[in-house]
Amino acid sequence: MSEAPHLTFDLDTPGVSRGHLFVPGGADRGELSLPVFSLNQGEGPRLLVTGGNHGNELEGPIVARRLINWLPEAQTCGRVIVLPVLNPLAVQAWSRNTPLDGLNLNRVFPGRADGSVTERIADAVSHVLLPMADTVFDLHSFGPTWDFPPAATTHPVADPDLMARTVRMAEAFNLPLTLVWQHNDTAGMFDITAQKQGKVFVCAEFGGGAVGADNLAIYEAGVRNALMALGLVEGKAEYPTFRHRSSGQTLETHPSDELKSPAAGIFEPRCSVLDEVKQGDLVGILHPMDSLSSKSIDIRAPGTSTVLAISSGMHVDASKVVALVARPRK
Amino acid sequence: MSEAPHLTFDLDTPGVSRGHLFVPGGADRGELSLPVFSLNQGEGPRLLVTGGNHGNELEGPIVARRLINWLPEAQTCGRVIVLPVLNPLAVQAWSRNTPLDGLNLNRVFPGRADGSVTERIADAVSHVLLPMADTVFDLHSFGPTWDFPPAATTHPVADPDLMARTVRMAEAFNLPLTLVWQHNDTAGMFDITAQKQGKVFVCAEFGGGAVGADNLAIYEAGVRNALMALGLVEGKAEYPTFRHRSSGQTLETHPSDELKSPAAGIFEPRCSVLDEVKQGDLVGILHPMDSLSSKSIDIRAPGTSTVLAISSGMHVDASKVVALVARPRK
Repeated sequence: MSEAPHLTFDLDTPGVSRGHLFVPGGADRGELSLPVFSLNQGEGPRLLVTGGNHGNELEGPIVARRLINWLPEAQTCGRVIVLPVLNPLAVQAWSRNTPLDGLNLNRVFPGRADGSVTERIADAVSHVLLPMADTVFDLHSFGPTWDFPPAATTHPVADPDLMARTVRMAEAFNLPLTLVWQHNDTAGMFDITAQKQGKVFVCAEFGGGAVGADNLAIYEAGVRNALMALGLVEGKAEYPTFRHRSSGQTLETHPSDELKSPAAGIFEPRCSVLDEVKQGDLVGILHPMDSLSSKSIDIRAPGTSTVLAISSGMHVDASKVVALVARPRK
Repeated sequence: MSEAPHLTFDLDTPGVSRGHLFVPGGADRGELSLPVFSLNQGEGPRLLVTGGNHGNELEGPIVARRLINWLPEAQTCGRVIVLPVLNPLAVQAWSRNTPLDGLNLNRVFPGRADGSVTERIADAVSHVLLPMADTVFDLHSFGPTWDFPPAATTHPVADPDLMARTVRMAEAFNLPLTLVWQHNDTAGMFDITAQKQGKVFVCAEFGGGAVGADNLAIYEAGVRNALMALGLVEGKAEYPTFRHRSSGQTLETHPSDELKSPAAGIFEPRCSVLDEVKQGDLVGILHPMDSLSSKSIDIRAPGTSTVLAISSGMHVDASKVVALVARPRK
């Protein structure tokens, strides 16, 4: 039996500390050391910020690194723990899942101490870091094949009080979109584990496509706004401008809001995220590839809604989700 | 020996024809049938438009499909042949190279009749379609991990007359950027084969990141402008607006204009394409991943130039190209 997961430094040390989260080795590979930053300014909120849960979503790790740079001069109270890269194996491979075991880290929480490497990472985070925080920001993005507006998201939470606090926290990012996302593939997600421990958990879903300087600035502003709302840093919150808009809206989406490709072929996006659509409006086109005599197939909006996410132009199989729409939260 | 590559229809038929380019089978897999569109309006320029040379650059195939929709009502003379997807195996896999043989189609021209599948595609295109055209537009894009402005590009061509005609053709796209691109990895490119046959060859390099509706509109406008310049269709050329600019510029770039990562780590882009930079300006930051005590490393502009391309935020190895700059064409 190898060592148990642990931190290589003491989180109770006042001020800035840097070290690693030790993830024990197993049958598939040796130990991992995940760099961790901590800033302990005494009494106050206890926040855990994580990035790199999926290896092809790099806004999170980059904004986490920026946070580490300015927190020492800005944080006035409480404790912030930053783990910029949860899954270095996936990040190095620019892959959503861990190449070694093929697992999606965000579907194996709370993890297993005797599992494969992805499960051991989840286990270390769940047992060593999560108990040290009351609030968690897991900095995702939508990955390279989707367009998605800068958003703070949550899944529905059964406990009404925790749900209300979670939505308030998400809205405090002041991003163009706050989203309550109901979908059917939530087993093993980091947020479920955190919420079972009563914690406020907000998942940032930003950008999509290439990770560029403009979107990073919006992302960082959202995280800074949320830190102000927690009282960890001082300053005046602002609404970052995204495609000429600088106000936020709170929407909800359900599994029935997914638009799927009617056949295999090349998907052509015909609208942009945050576009308002009515029933019958063109959202995208599916071009069969076998023959130029085959008609292209229009994909239309089922009702009045806001385009939440749209796939990049790419080849898709039949019944692949190519767009998500959303409606104002009830 | 299998059948020779051929078209399943006669390009000399007046008006619209649709059929396939037959690519013979070989040891690695059976035959391929690549859908081809042709519109023969008699005397005039002979243009070949191709897309899907690389499988993760889908602007080209989508704009090629749009072209097929409006050409029958717009084309007044000459001949346009459209092959929306050169490499369906790569497109289906959303992969730059062909998964089956690992080859980059744009490095194996003019191909080999007895080669692997990628070489057989190049051979069929070189011998069946290329002789039928005087001008070729190969519709690429920069792929999902880069940002790049909408551009019409050429490599330097040794023959000064062909070079002048090529640059004029590229500039007729009226895109934000016309680029003369000198690099050291041109052996086996489609353009080299076409230029050896005396043809004007323009390679469109558009977008980067997700293939979205806004960029597709710019891309299509560029291709339409070029068709007008050839006299194939009528209308008034326009400069498409990109990031609040609606004028074009002609730049050149050389291998020495590549900026490389100083170490392995996460690259953070700190500027956007078409930004003007001076010597010492911050272009990006390299964040080592092993420790949060290691300093991040600034990547700075070597001199006055325009940012031509910038990598998405992602993990990179040491000495990986993360940005390209360019200067006004001399």
